[in-house]
Amino acid sequence: MDYYKSPTKDMMFLLDVFDYESRVSTLEAFADYDKDMVGAILDTASAVCIDKLLPLNSVGDAEGLKWDPETGDVTTPEGFKGAYATLVENGLLGVTCTPEYGGMGGPEVLGIYSSEIMIATNKSFSMCPGLSRGLIDALAAHGSDEQKEFYLPKLISGEWSGTMCLTEPQCGTDLGLIRTKAIPQDDGSYKLTGTKIWITFGEHDLAENIIHLVLARLPDAPEGIKGISAFIVPKKIDGELNNVKCTGLEHKMGIKASPTCVIDMEDSTGFLVGTPHKGMRSMFVMMNAARLHVGVEGIALGSIAYQTALAFAKDRRQMRAIDPAKQDQNAAADNILVHPDVRRMLLNVKATTEGLRALGAWISMEYDVAHHHPDADTRKAADDIVALLTPVIKSYGSEQGFLNISEAMQVCGGAGYTTDWNIEQYMRDERIALIYEGTNHIQALDLVGRKLRIDSGRLLRTFQGRISELIVESKDDERMAEFLTPLKTISKKLVGATMEMGGAAMEDPEVVGAVASPYLNLFAMCALTYVWAKQAHYVLNNDVPFGETKLKTARYFNTKILPQAETLIATIATGKSNIMDFDIEELEVI
Amino acid sequence: MDYYKSPTKDMMFLLDVFDYESRVSTLEAFADYDKDMVGAILDTASAVCIDKLLPLNSVGDAEGLKWDPETGDVTTPEGFKGAYATLVENGLLGVTCTPEYGGMGGPEVLGIYSSEIMIATNKSFSMCPGLSRGLIDALAAHGSDEQKEFYLPKLISGEWSGTMCLTEPQCGTDLGLIRTKAIPQDDGSYKLTGTKIWITFGEHDLAENIIHLVLARLPDAPEGIKGISAFIVPKKIDGELNNVKCTGLEHKMGIKASPTCVIDMEDSTGFLVGTPHKGMRSMFVMMNAARLHVGVEGIALGSIAYQTALAFAKDRRQMRAIDPAKQDQNAAADNILVHPDVRRMLLNVKATTEGLRALGAWISMEYDVAHHHPDADTRKAADDIVALLTPVIKSYGSEQGFLNISEAMQVCGGAGYTTDWNIEQYMRDERIALIYEGTNHIQALDLVGRKLRIDSGRLLRTFQGRISELIVESKDDERMAEFLTPLKTISKKLVGATMEMGGAAMEDPEVVGAVASPYLNLFAMCALTYVWAKQAHYVLNNDVPFGETKLKTARYFNTKILPQAETLIATIATGKSNIMDFDIEELEVI
Repeated sequence: MDYYKSPTKDMMFLLDVFDYESRVSTLEAFADYDKDMVGAILDTASAVCIDKLLPLNSVGDAEGLKWDPETGDVTTPEGFKGAYATLVENGLLGVTCTPEYGGMGGPEVLGIYSSEIMIATNKSFSMCPGLSRGLIDALAAHGSDEQKEFYLPKLISGEWSGTMCLTEPQCGTDLGLIRTKAIPQDDGSYKLTGTKIWITFGEHDLAENIIHLVLARLPDAPEGIKGISAFIVPKKIDGELNNVKCTGLEHKMGIKASPTCVIDMEDSTGFLVGTPHKGMRSMFVMMNAARLHVGVEGIALGSIAYQTALAFAKDRRQMRAIDPAKQDQNAAADNILVHPDVRRMLLNVKATTEGLRALGAWISMEYDVAHHHPDADTRKAADDIVALLTPVIKSYGSEQGFLNISEAMQVCGGAGYTTDWNIEQYMRDERIALIYEGTNHIQALDLVGRKLRIDSGRLLRTFQGRISELIVESKDDERMAEFLTPLKTISKKLVGATMEMGGAAMEDPEVVGAVASPYLNLFAMCALTYVWAKQAHYVLNNDVPFGETKLKTARYFNTKILPQAETLIATIATGKSNIMDFDIEELEVI
Repeated sequence: MDYYKSPTKDMMFLLDVFDYESRVSTLEAFADYDKDMVGAILDTASAVCIDKLLPLNSVGDAEGLKWDPETGDVTTPEGFKGAYATLVENGLLGVTCTPEYGGMGGPEVLGIYSSEIMIATNKSFSMCPGLSRGLIDALAAHGSDEQKEFYLPKLISGEWSGTMCLTEPQCGTDLGLIRTKAIPQDDGSYKLTGTKIWITFGEHDLAENIIHLVLARLPDAPEGIKGISAFIVPKKIDGELNNVKCTGLEHKMGIKASPTCVIDMEDSTGFLVGTPHKGMRSMFVMMNAARLHVGVEGIALGSIAYQTALAFAKDRRQMRAIDPAKQDQNAAADNILVHPDVRRMLLNVKATTEGLRALGAWISMEYDVAHHHPDADTRKAADDIVALLTPVIKSYGSEQGFLNISEAMQVCGGAGYTTDWNIEQYMRDERIALIYEGTNHIQALDLVGRKLRIDSGRLLRTFQGRISELIVESKDDERMAEFLTPLKTISKKLVGATMEMGGAAMEDPEVVGAVASPYLNLFAMCALTYVWAKQAHYVLNNDVPFGETKLKTARYFNTKILPQAETLIATIATGKSNIMDFDIEELEVI
């Protein structure tokens, strides 16, 4: 059974909280996108996804994929093709894509909202348009005009789909080890030969053609990451197969309706994208957008798991309320929502899921400003927030999303462990999010090793600036004190931990590796405290129907989730102590 | 691929740490069980389980169970029957059972050690003898002599297997709601009618007969939990079927080779066990032993997941070491064990898994003392430790075990998410451990609401007495200071949190429900700090080949795991704040 209502009211509320009308819909690019327009598209997306994708979710998991070893063809579960066609018809695959090539040209915040709805209703399915969007972004940024005109219209409409071919058996995180070769041809094209693995929707039957963005080496390439070039390698050229064959599917814990392919190329024709040896640029365009959406996966599946657990809890009676006043004398047992621990579990999920949704809304609106604001300084500041918080939402969002689904399962007891309630599928589907698009530790190194170091901490200063703005803006409002005090405290602690980590790393760079992961989670605590204070501030100054609930949830976050910071701070303070002392033999089982 | 070496050296070491030779093998009941004997049995168990059960583990998961709706018969995966027969032949199903009825009469510590090995190599399979053992214990404690003589020899040998039939559709946690009826017959037997769900190995083809222990109500039963009686209901009586039919199997996230049955009885013949209306007593005998073994599941699957991740890590090269001295100039990338975060993840698993194994060893040796020591006070003190720490190891062991498997998966990156490395199966198999045998919150309520309140905290005082003994014993040993200081600190904090919680609960009993779960985890932190200090103390005073490694792991625990206490303490301090304030409608998705 699936229990899902699209959280559109929360999404619309967050537009207000982060000043959508004054900051985003005033941008020339989004002149058509006032709040009503966003709301209308979300309503369509919700209706279509709930109607067409949700019923296929557990079906797809059970049926899985068929692969023909002879032809390499992959058949998606029954119904997927029809659902894909419906989404193409409704233009729902190109909501954020440029209208120049047929997209709807909507803001990124609309993109992550509709992404959340699509993932919640069918994560496996959502991977296909998700990958296409990555390729569209990469081509829009680095493709030639000719390439854009040829590929973008069909990718944006969904007639064709896209992939990103990075990983090879010997390299996942470490793309400098790529071996796939690209040999220049007289006509300006290239012949590519090599094997790529983990290729999501690398082969399938939903779209007419599949366009692979492939990382490979030119014959004269320098070693390592600086010798990687990017190529377009279509499955078919002018209707003819291009020797790009799926030679196997991975058997995975989850996302079983999303084909994870081994892709073999042998003298397959490809076309260079951008500059030789600078292929990582195109890839980073894909990966940064993708990382934000991976964070959204935790929100989406956390949300549907929450709704399922709540539906179970509302119906289930077990044991008596501790408080006699809450006991139902007309029944042999009380509804389990009388038990503090059941509420604790549900509220853990609610407070972090809504907090993460607010964080995603904020980042995506900054993304829109960063890409479309006329003023360079404004763009830069907005981009600082996006760059700083993208690894945070990817890593914390996926980790907490996974834990939230587990918490939702716990609410349902044994029923939650069966396939009847689908939570177990959400958990299996979510677990990969901690790994792909850069493992969570890679996100932490990106945050600590790259983002914090830009201009000696400029991004962190921009982030703190936003916090200060809110504090200054509401300093005379006594009602805000309960939300500002924890925000000030966690913000100070974060800066303290940053300094401490920086100092220790100067003496020993291994400290960064040892503490980056807990540090990222501490950063998430600060960011979520901020977005909860922002929501509280909006509620206290505006008429919001569910305003009281938002205030209660903000308080719950500050009381019951924010204390996670204490352990993180204590752990960061111990640096790399006792981590590197073991010889490898000492790690063996005793 | 499965990577498993039985951790027998660690097990044997822990016998020394907790004074097996002077405390357990001196007991009359275990006169035959010196350390060598225990070691020999563990070696046999390891060899048989690795040879017969491990190869069937992923096979069983993939093949699953067959159920015939017509007959209700359940067929286990290919090979299970043969493996069961081998274990029966080797007497491995009755290692702790009384020799009076054909058991090996070994100590409980041997029981949990062999249980760990069996679970690690095939958790689904291990559930069958696990349930039999529960029934054996219950009959040994509450069955009549006639019942013991008739049932125990066949249950102990494994010719017959056992189940525990508690849950019904309307009641899991709340057994007072049971509706199954037992009608007395003239011949002293009863006719039972009702439906039981979640019956592990309720029907299967491994044993000749299945003996169900069924909770039901007599016609004159008082309402609620005080009107529950226990009955033996065999599948077959004198070779004739007894109208006990499996009418369905649950479809579950994991343990897919372990049948979870719906069992229908209609006028099935049963025999009362113990006193009418006192059936919960028999059930508690089963459940307490079972809870200890559920904690062991987290150790077992955490251990095999760890070994798998280590095997992966030792082979995998990605990126360069941060420390140039650790870079391998003969290869394009360094082994991932140079990266602090990979070690951090592995050590998180190692330190908690070995800590939990030590905790299990300690509890089970106290169990042996509690059941067999000639002195009543000594038995009582030992039983205090067992009663207090059983919910702790069940809950923390299952939760941390699950997280540990997830951490091991993360070490393997994308490979860990595939079925090739089996970690994903361990994760699915482990998740149910947080739910069954009393959900983890029920364990926390047992700890706080029952165990702590006995004799105004006697059990906690006994526990603190053990800590004090170690502190006094090693107070002049400067080398112990680094292990005693954190122990003293966490012990004081635990007592502080206990007092605080107790005070708050006097004013508002709902506080207990709100904080019991984090409180149990705080208790686990203190218990693990103690068992690590015990191990360090033994190593520092004896010649242990892997002694240095143990000291390093103890240090790692104190530095990197123990800080979890900080968040738990901060959370407990906030009591039930903001938990009960939400109206039910406010929990709905916005």
